[in-house]
Amino acid sequence: MPHYYFEDCVVGESRSFGQYEVTRESVLAFARQFDPQPFHLDDEVAAKTPFGRLAASGWHTCAMTMRMMVEHWTAIGLESLGSPGLEDLRWLKPVYPGDILHVHYECLDRRPSLSRPDIGLVKGAWRTVNQDDVTVCSFTATTMVRRRPAPGRT
Amino acid sequence: MPHYYFEDCVVGESRSFGQYEVTRESVLAFARQFDPQPFHLDDEVAAKTPFGRLAASGWHTCAMTMRMMVEHWTAIGLESLGSPGLEDLRWLKPVYPGDILHVHYECLDRRPSLSRPDIGLVKGAWRTVNQDDVTVCSFTATTMVRRRPAPGRT
Repeated sequence: MPHYYFEDCVVGESRSFGQYEVTRESVLAFARQFDPQPFHLDDEVAAKTPFGRLAASGWHTCAMTMRMMVEHWTAIGLESLGSPGLEDLRWLKPVYPGDILHVHYECLDRRPSLSRPDIGLVKGAWRTVNQDDVTVCSFTATTMVRRRPAPGRT
Repeated sequence: MPHYYFEDCVVGESRSFGQYEVTRESVLAFARQFDPQPFHLDDEVAAKTPFGRLAASGWHTCAMTMRMMVEHWTAIGLESLGSPGLEDLRWLKPVYPGDILHVHYECLDRRPSLSRPDIGLVKGAWRTVNQDDVTVCSFTATTMVRRRPAPGRT
């Protein structure tokens, strides 16, 4: 199993990954459960809004993005301990049923934790991009990542 | 049906609302679908993290918060047109199965849209609070809200 530690996170590195098909059923199911605003549930209502047609909840877009992030982290073995939060979440364009999303990541900064010697904080710029190469969502997030164990330490 | 327009949003107003029970089943279902990190899926793994036990995905907390927001908006008749994004999302404390969440809102600012005379932008501070009155999540969001139609306008 690979391990990707704080020390492996390089400022300036960028990666694109993921392929998530947005289905009409999933848009409706998420909206019914978490964001039952009419323009996320009803074609006719959505047609009269700037969306133009049925569009996914912004939180659904975040959740789909997270799914792609976690799959990528698992593949590279990122030693993530979660995130304290993020900055500047932007829902830039609507996400529609039929869209196929992927993620673009760039490492902006990293620093060792002042309070916990075993972890570091990695700041990254995340963008969710559709099949037309249009960025639909973006945010800057801090992720807590384990530091590489010292030689001899298990 | 009530209508709550941009003009009804008063800077400084605050409200608490909602009651959302976090079930173990929903924590696992959300994590399986959108955030399959081990500490959101496995009791033993979670016990070894700072969470201490199985905790909800931060995106699940946001989604549950949104559900309470939409229910409240529907009750007051808020003429919302969605949100372009938010600032400073913070996952401050873990959310556990069995928690009962509510929301606290304060209106921070409002201004008419410069590009669209029919809408205004309302900035609010949102906090998700658990049954022990501990804030588990917070963010500042901008919501697009319809302006009150001029007299005589339908």
